[in-house]
Amino acid sequence: MKLVYKIWIEGDNKAFGEGPYKLLLKVNQLGSIYKAAQDMNMSYSKAWSIIKRAERELGIALVESNIGGAGGGGSCLTPQAKILMNKYDEFCNEAGEILIKLYNKYFSELL
Amino acid sequence: MKLVYKIWIEGDNKAFGEGPYKLLLKVNQLGSIYKAAQDMNMSYSKAWSIIKRAERELGIALVESNIGGAGGGGSCLTPQAKILMNKYDEFCNEAGEILIKLYNKYFSELL
Repeated sequence: MKLVYKIWIEGDNKAFGEGPYKLLLKVNQLGSIYKAAQDMNMSYSKAWSIIKRAERELGIALVESNIGGAGGGGSCLTPQAKILMNKYDEFCNEAGEILIKLYNKYFSELL
Repeated sequence: MKLVYKIWIEGDNKAFGEGPYKLLLKVNQLGSIYKAAQDMNMSYSKAWSIIKRAERELGIALVESNIGGAGGGGSCLTPQAKILMNKYDEFCNEAGEILIKLYNKYFSELL
């Protein structure tokens, strides 16, 4: 037996969690929402709407787009998005460790 | 903004979480799976299958049925189910407190 958990941040609606986090990680890595969506087998419009919903619910701009230029357009994370990503990552690591310890404390003898 | 989380215990499949917990709480309170299902606007067969799945996945008998008798049949929790319920309750309370503290530690200034 093991513990499974899902954690997300909510305002009026779901705002930020594992889905947007993984997508933004790919945008940061590949420099493009289009390439990130492709890499995650997701339509561009779905990726776009995930990012826009997170931005709207959080009230934070997450992605900046660079239109045109020699290599075509691209997207990168805003400084605030990078701060959010780092904090979310640290939060999830610490939360995960603590939850596993708690699970063992309460259930290791029983299950 | 606030933190939202779902936590459950899994073996090969989902085994125990908020759904079975709330159902067993009602069974304990009302002394009957039928009455518990009715109270939760759930069909008897759905309630039955939730309990049986949890028992199968956990490998623990959770409910004992008393057939017939003067007041008709009824169901009550096994001693092991009561131990599991208490531990799950304590686990969720402690996990909830810690997660809220962690959320504030990481996000209170940002969000």
